[in-house]
Amino acid sequence: MRTVYVNGEFVLEKDAKVSIFDRAFLFADAVYEVTSVLNGKLVDFDNHMKRLNRSMKELNFGPKIKEKEFLAFHRKLVDINKIEEGIVYLQVSRGIAERDFAFPPSDTQLTITAFTQTKKLIDNDVAKKGIKIITIDDLRWKRCDIKTIQLLYPSIAKSEAMKQGVDDAWMTQNGYIMEGTSNNAWIIKGKNIYTREADNLILNGITRQAVAQVAEQLKYKVIHKQFTVQEAENADEAFITSATAFVTGVIQINDRKMSKGKPGIFTHSLREAYIQQALATLK
Amino acid sequence: MRTVYVNGEFVLEKDAKVSIFDRAFLFADAVYEVTSVLNGKLVDFDNHMKRLNRSMKELNFGPKIKEKEFLAFHRKLVDINKIEEGIVYLQVSRGIAERDFAFPPSDTQLTITAFTQTKKLIDNDVAKKGIKIITIDDLRWKRCDIKTIQLLYPSIAKSEAMKQGVDDAWMTQNGYIMEGTSNNAWIIKGKNIYTREADNLILNGITRQAVAQVAEQLKYKVIHKQFTVQEAENADEAFITSATAFVTGVIQINDRKMSKGKPGIFTHSLREAYIQQALATLK
Repeated sequence: MRTVYVNGEFVLEKDAKVSIFDRAFLFADAVYEVTSVLNGKLVDFDNHMKRLNRSMKELNFGPKIKEKEFLAFHRKLVDINKIEEGIVYLQVSRGIAERDFAFPPSDTQLTITAFTQTKKLIDNDVAKKGIKIITIDDLRWKRCDIKTIQLLYPSIAKSEAMKQGVDDAWMTQNGYIMEGTSNNAWIIKGKNIYTREADNLILNGITRQAVAQVAEQLKYKVIHKQFTVQEAENADEAFITSATAFVTGVIQINDRKMSKGKPGIFTHSLREAYIQQALATLK
Repeated sequence: MRTVYVNGEFVLEKDAKVSIFDRAFLFADAVYEVTSVLNGKLVDFDNHMKRLNRSMKELNFGPKIKEKEFLAFHRKLVDINKIEEGIVYLQVSRGIAERDFAFPPSDTQLTITAFTQTKKLIDNDVAKKGIKIITIDDLRWKRCDIKTIQLLYPSIAKSEAMKQGVDDAWMTQNGYIMEGTSNNAWIIKGKNIYTREADNLILNGITRQAVAQVAEQLKYKVIHKQFTVQEAENADEAFITSATAFVTGVIQINDRKMSKGKPGIFTHSLREAYIQQALATLK
């Protein structure tokens, strides 16, 4: 049984509980980060903390987080649970308060929880095979740049995709692809790689930012511009990025087979190059 | 200290806890209802259960609720906590599962929690004085007809209103008023009363439905049609409805004073008539 983190304590997962008055539980008033672990070490931890701080700032959370303390409990969770490869999930809620739509006092103590999951990230079967996706109408709120736990719609979309026998869904607005349910969407056409500009409607993925740099080192041109479902279906290759998928090829979009039904060649090199870069910068 | 309800148990609020793996806590994957209490009895309980069932169905929750059991624990909470006037808050989450965007198996046990709050609902100072509101852009998701706990944006809007020295916000899309942060919006012009049609963008309030009936008994014509901010500012009267506000007059919309800065005359009679009707149908 895992040991997880709840407000400064390391406890068995069966004992990891929070108040029913926690604002995460009542108002979805919480933000999160998922940091991947390779060789028992953290990938891109500083950038995850940077984004967490931004999410909290956008929502006017009162207290600040202590990054050193966060790094310490992330490392301790990885050690205790002997995670060689996997993730640390971290959540920060505005804390416990009597139920009221108005924010509680700004000195309300944050609720900080974290747990690990073991996952094969590098030698990953899904990445080898590639994923099939459908496109689905994006019904989410208009501040998807803030990494909140308001994840009900992505969860619905993911479940719908699986019900239809595929792996995931790309969410669309007015025919344009926004992002996957828990990943960013990319296509390749010639030497150009497209991924949507980061504004209020999508999450600016940490892996996405790292992958964009790697792609430019590989002499591809990264264009931050939204693309349509049709453009995606007609692309040379398509892939997703996320903290756990790294770079994973998309082999089918709706009924259209992509790159002959296998992860594309450039997608493959990009994945390899990203993993090398990630391994070289562990914390 | 209150006694609250957690999955079949009545516990002190300090001991009322749920797993950090609950899907309400991780994915906002939960729905809720707020039933008001008058004279120690429940207002419109059956309609709240009906809407709860609908919310659960729309989200493909597996298990069904047992209404008799729900009525029993609502009543017991009211009794134990000696609630003469106030509310029972009820929440049903999809339950506990390893974190995964895909829904857990459909036989996953729901997490059912409930607690009471004492509130003066009839002899209410805010209703006597009326409320001031601002209008604010509606950034919520597109399934506000489902009463989920994805309440972060209404919470932001309410907090913003209070920061600006007023009581609440009406959320708008393209110049049209959708609803309040936790109430439905209405205006009166002559013998016509307007409230928005209930579709996927607003919650079809239980109190709203009851008030519409009462208004027609009072010979007003209820028109379910959206109205603009300007139409609201130029109305004779404006008011909100909710399980706790009942009918409460709006005395200012943005910078425009309404009905001479006091709750309107018809708003007042409608409130009185609604309360009489509610008192006559307690459960």
